[in-house]
Amino acid sequence: MQAYFQYDSKKTGGVTISHLRFGDKPIKSPYYISKADFVACHNPSYVDKGFKMVQDVKPGGVYLINCQWKPEELEKHIDGASRRYLAQNNIQLYTIDAIDLAIEIGMGKRTNTILQSAFFTLAKVMPAEEAVQHMKEAATKSYRKKGQDIVDMNHKAIDLGANAFVKIDVPASWADCPDTPEPEVHPDRPEVMKMVKDILTPVDKMDGDSLPVSAFVDHADGTFYLGAAAHEKRGVAVTVPRWDEGKCIQCNQCAYVCPHATIRPFALTEEEAAKAPEAAKIADWKAGKGKGVYKFAMAVSPLDCMGCGVCVGVCPTKAVTMVPREEEQPQEAVWNYMVDEVAPKEELFEMTVKGSQFHQPLLEFSGSCAGCAETSYARLVTQVCGDHMYIANATGCSSIWGGPAATSPYTRTKEGRGPAWANSLFEDNAEFGLGMYIGQKAIRDRLKSDIEFVAENGKVDSIREAAKEYLASYDDGKANELATRKLVAAVEKDGCGGEHCQAILKNKEFLAKKTVWIFGGDGWAYDIGFGGLDHVLAQGEDVNVLVFDTEVYSNTGGQASKASQIGQVAQFAAAGKTLAKKSLAQIAMTYGYVYVAQIAMGANPAQALKAIGEAVAYPGPSLIIGYAPCEMHSIKGGMTNCQAEMKKAVECGYWNLFRYNPALAAEGKNPFTLDSKAPTGSYRDFIMNEARYSALTINFPERAEELFTEAEKKAGERFANLELQKQMFEQEVKA
Amino acid sequence: MQAYFQYDSKKTGGVTISHLRFGDKPIKSPYYISKADFVACHNPSYVDKGFKMVQDVKPGGVYLINCQWKPEELEKHIDGASRRYLAQNNIQLYTIDAIDLAIEIGMGKRTNTILQSAFFTLAKVMPAEEAVQHMKEAATKSYRKKGQDIVDMNHKAIDLGANAFVKIDVPASWADCPDTPEPEVHPDRPEVMKMVKDILTPVDKMDGDSLPVSAFVDHADGTFYLGAAAHEKRGVAVTVPRWDEGKCIQCNQCAYVCPHATIRPFALTEEEAAKAPEAAKIADWKAGKGKGVYKFAMAVSPLDCMGCGVCVGVCPTKAVTMVPREEEQPQEAVWNYMVDEVAPKEELFEMTVKGSQFHQPLLEFSGSCAGCAETSYARLVTQVCGDHMYIANATGCSSIWGGPAATSPYTRTKEGRGPAWANSLFEDNAEFGLGMYIGQKAIRDRLKSDIEFVAENGKVDSIREAAKEYLASYDDGKANELATRKLVAAVEKDGCGGEHCQAILKNKEFLAKKTVWIFGGDGWAYDIGFGGLDHVLAQGEDVNVLVFDTEVYSNTGGQASKASQIGQVAQFAAAGKTLAKKSLAQIAMTYGYVYVAQIAMGANPAQALKAIGEAVAYPGPSLIIGYAPCEMHSIKGGMTNCQAEMKKAVECGYWNLFRYNPALAAEGKNPFTLDSKAPTGSYRDFIMNEARYSALTINFPERAEELFTEAEKKAGERFANLELQKQMFEQEVKA
Repeated sequence: MQAYFQYDSKKTGGVTISHLRFGDKPIKSPYYISKADFVACHNPSYVDKGFKMVQDVKPGGVYLINCQWKPEELEKHIDGASRRYLAQNNIQLYTIDAIDLAIEIGMGKRTNTILQSAFFTLAKVMPAEEAVQHMKEAATKSYRKKGQDIVDMNHKAIDLGANAFVKIDVPASWADCPDTPEPEVHPDRPEVMKMVKDILTPVDKMDGDSLPVSAFVDHADGTFYLGAAAHEKRGVAVTVPRWDEGKCIQCNQCAYVCPHATIRPFALTEEEAAKAPEAAKIADWKAGKGKGVYKFAMAVSPLDCMGCGVCVGVCPTKAVTMVPREEEQPQEAVWNYMVDEVAPKEELFEMTVKGSQFHQPLLEFSGSCAGCAETSYARLVTQVCGDHMYIANATGCSSIWGGPAATSPYTRTKEGRGPAWANSLFEDNAEFGLGMYIGQKAIRDRLKSDIEFVAENGKVDSIREAAKEYLASYDDGKANELATRKLVAAVEKDGCGGEHCQAILKNKEFLAKKTVWIFGGDGWAYDIGFGGLDHVLAQGEDVNVLVFDTEVYSNTGGQASKASQIGQVAQFAAAGKTLAKKSLAQIAMTYGYVYVAQIAMGANPAQALKAIGEAVAYPGPSLIIGYAPCEMHSIKGGMTNCQAEMKKAVECGYWNLFRYNPALAAEGKNPFTLDSKAPTGSYRDFIMNEARYSALTINFPERAEELFTEAEKKAGERFANLELQKQMFEQEVKA
Repeated sequence: MQAYFQYDSKKTGGVTISHLRFGDKPIKSPYYISKADFVACHNPSYVDKGFKMVQDVKPGGVYLINCQWKPEELEKHIDGASRRYLAQNNIQLYTIDAIDLAIEIGMGKRTNTILQSAFFTLAKVMPAEEAVQHMKEAATKSYRKKGQDIVDMNHKAIDLGANAFVKIDVPASWADCPDTPEPEVHPDRPEVMKMVKDILTPVDKMDGDSLPVSAFVDHADGTFYLGAAAHEKRGVAVTVPRWDEGKCIQCNQCAYVCPHATIRPFALTEEEAAKAPEAAKIADWKAGKGKGVYKFAMAVSPLDCMGCGVCVGVCPTKAVTMVPREEEQPQEAVWNYMVDEVAPKEELFEMTVKGSQFHQPLLEFSGSCAGCAETSYARLVTQVCGDHMYIANATGCSSIWGGPAATSPYTRTKEGRGPAWANSLFEDNAEFGLGMYIGQKAIRDRLKSDIEFVAENGKVDSIREAAKEYLASYDDGKANELATRKLVAAVEKDGCGGEHCQAILKNKEFLAKKTVWIFGGDGWAYDIGFGGLDHVLAQGEDVNVLVFDTEVYSNTGGQASKASQIGQVAQFAAAGKTLAKKSLAQIAMTYGYVYVAQIAMGANPAQALKAIGEAVAYPGPSLIIGYAPCEMHSIKGGMTNCQAEMKKAVECGYWNLFRYNPALAAEGKNPFTLDSKAPTGSYRDFIMNEARYSALTINFPERAEELFTEAEKKAGERFANLELQKQMFEQEVKA
């Protein structure tokens, strides 16, 4: 047998294509099968989306669709080209409703056993009875430990699968049916629409291999346009949040934690509120800035939402509930209206937990896991400084959700500004980011002399003043971004056209101070890229590092890193890691001139935001380590509990919150702030809530006891040490 | 003009051969010149050593020797083959006494200007007057800043050089004079003597290029025999120490600090004392162990000594003085007697500063700079555990003095045990050392079961007991080394020849616990290899790291590293480094399970030795950072003051001494010991004693003031922080 599995880059709701060949002799064919005896589609949404599947079946072969559709409904689901292929090539079409069958026999969403059995019966790889026999034996072996009822359930599924398929007569009329029209593309810049049509859509349909080289000519330098992820409309979520405008207290916490930026508050003028689509829910402004001025709306994008339910978990008033996606479909038009038509009002809202959410997230709809903590952090950073931001991204989850080719989830403001993003190798990403910083600094320092000339000798007051404002804010990202806009506008309006004015206009994109961020996971920051990270932090330059600390190599399947904790089960630490987690924050603090913070959004959203703001403001290197619960942790109840898990982690002392700000030391103040309170929750309860720990008690119960005790002890010592450090810094300040 | 310079790998007293071609058109010849119009030998010792030089002069060409010899003395200095070549090829032989001329005009050892002028006159590259004109202009330009007297002196040297050479008539009899007999090789193992003859000697004479590939066949795997450096007998020192047995209090400090292991104490029985050569100075034992039992001798090897004078500086009673080497030549025989004939009595002497020096140094006569601090540290480590030691050495000075091909300065005991040494790349040396550790551990763990079997079932009491002793000392390097000897001896004597006994004998070299050391400089540890060093320390395995911290990339010419200090002038920091030195020790301490120490031999010899002993004893990773003054620091008075400079560095708080021993924490004790006292000396005085700092006051006086003030402030803060840390650890222990 030869087996090859083809994946897309999506973490949740991604596509897998299994290419299987059977034979008595070793098989040495190229992996991809394009003329198959048998093709099955296990997920009906792929049929709706028009994936090319039946085209891989050879004439006379078998095509099986797993769906709840009646035979007469197939015509409206299967696209025209596929129907023509079915009819013209004498394909034997079958359907099977493994979805309802699985529910019926108690297997929930697990349709695979049923479909496997159907495969063996229809594909005739071996005699059907023999296949059933083998499958049952294998199921017995696999599930014996879990109990006889599980074994029985699987045997039942095997029996069902071998018989539950239905042969469909392909209507002769399909042989010359017309193409199904392409779905309408949401309006966007022409270049983006072209990129979406030519590259993104075929790639999304797993048909990227069919693209000719010429399709990429416009992107020969590797650049893709920001914001294309908005065109994916993946519709992966089964349930999506429904907002109750009556119950909502407008705290924006749902938006603050949303990993996918699919629930967002909007401030609407009366006029904007009046023009909103009928399905829009719009409330009076309840408190604070905006009250009496604006209307409030919390919009949801059902097709972009991943259905993680994290928003529901953090809502203090149960104003958000999960409902079937179809029911909320009308909200898509509301969403589009809010995003497209409602004017940004960012400058009115300060960077508080609530206020930050009126700032456009410049990371949206990424292919991360539903509920991912990493994207929540990254999204928040883009709300703070995304319009004047460069990102150097280490290889890992964050480069997969951050930049799958042609599908940038990083996006731009209406003015056209957004994060410039690039992925480096695993090991040299810090250096890559430092290079970005130094590059922009060199260009700006060159242009500065032009602006100094204008500030001194400019004949137009507005230009001279704008130049002065630019110079005064030279090192302050946000202020300089605004000053640059003014300066460019003034020169564009009244510039003399002389060499300095020309230089300003020609280089207008380079003028504003860029905030450089270096993103990566713990595998990068603690291990493979640490040598470079240390070196870059040591240089004293104004770069900001954000580490998504999942305490494991998430992207490559869960290998232990130096961020992994005592007792944690991981690849290369199957019996639980014995060594303590590396203190990356403490290491960076030894320099004295590096801003360092540990954050956990779900535990203290305001502290997380404060740290990001301080890091951006600090004119030297900054390192923020964000605790990032992850699918790999196997948290009880799943990633819905991601933010709640952060809270528990901090409460029990598993993770500590603190900030070390050298800017304060320079003012003679204590640079160290311990934001965590003394642990109160149970450390053991916390870790036992995650299978990455609890699994150890099953396989190595005594060792688990030992390691968990040690881990808890270490956590206590760690917090005590932080308190002593706090005292130490206080004493230092006094001395 | 084409110029190529050929060097050997010696740091002090090394050889440079300048290959120069002149022409009006670009020269694209291969660099080495083997048929020259002109060859000059600037150092008469090369003639005495029999370097092939005149053989590179083409028939009829010019050969100039700088020497103080009279014409009639030449015959006894120039070897036979060279004399034949001179006579047979009509070489025009000249001598010049630039040595006395330079002294005469006040230029001291600086003979180069005189010899350059002689070169231009004799080699006739351009008209002599024109050459003199150019040289004088260049000298004026180079030395104007240093004063007119320096300019005048150089002009005088140029005039002298152009005229002071003497034409020698080559006697016709030289044409068929016999070969000069090869000097006698000191007896050694036959394989070493062969290697010395076939490889080391030609390489030492800069004639390595003439060696055929076949000369290396015995070393095809890159292995060279230990101890070959003892055959170099370089005779580089002009003055060497003379020991006054009357004044000596037998503290052994001279030997303790000797970078070259060329002054060593010996404990002699009456019989050994009686047999010593006539020139031997032997004293009664004054105090402590050995008194009434042994005689005491401090032996010096004049031909191996580098003449640094560090021993003189540390002697508390002026019992060591520097005298011309020739005067001490008779001591060479004494040295050979002591080394070859006096029995080792190591086991009687404990690892104190004094006692350690009766343990054979297993690093001797390296090609380091005279006075090098690095070799003092490394030599001391070999005295502690060199007979069961592996060394992984990063590229840098320590790999150059540590392992020039065929000339290992690491050596062996009379029993044949010594450090196994290998050099890795710059960046992965820590990993290389970890690999050595894991390799030997895997082999030992496999053999352990054989010994367990023998301990349980052995029929011979002595074997069974030895096996038990072996197992009991399994993780203790020194004890296990001794237990292994016993075990092997017992099995060799009374073993049954069964499979377990066979395994023990077959693998006897692998049985003893090896102490693995990872050596490297700050360029490696703080910068290029830091990612790996961090990772290796984090693994918790029993490896020991010794960092020779010269605060600069010494081997490559003085580039700043992250170990460089504020205000220090270095390559890439020509205007003084602005950022503080990285706290490598503090970083390693964040792990909690890494033994960490900062030492400075000259400041506190006992603390340095203590740290080395603790590191070896600690069963986890250890990191020792040794402050290593260096030629690159340009210390006033030179490297003679190396050890005294360490003392000053610690006294003024420039360098701090401390030890962090996790073994103590495990016992509930304070793991942190601050060995430095509060700074008393002047920080500014200290740094102004080294041109790496004082140079800044010349080129950037204001900036120097600013940076030096900052550096002093930081040093104060650093010490205060160490005191607070000490308190913090005390509080932790109490809690």
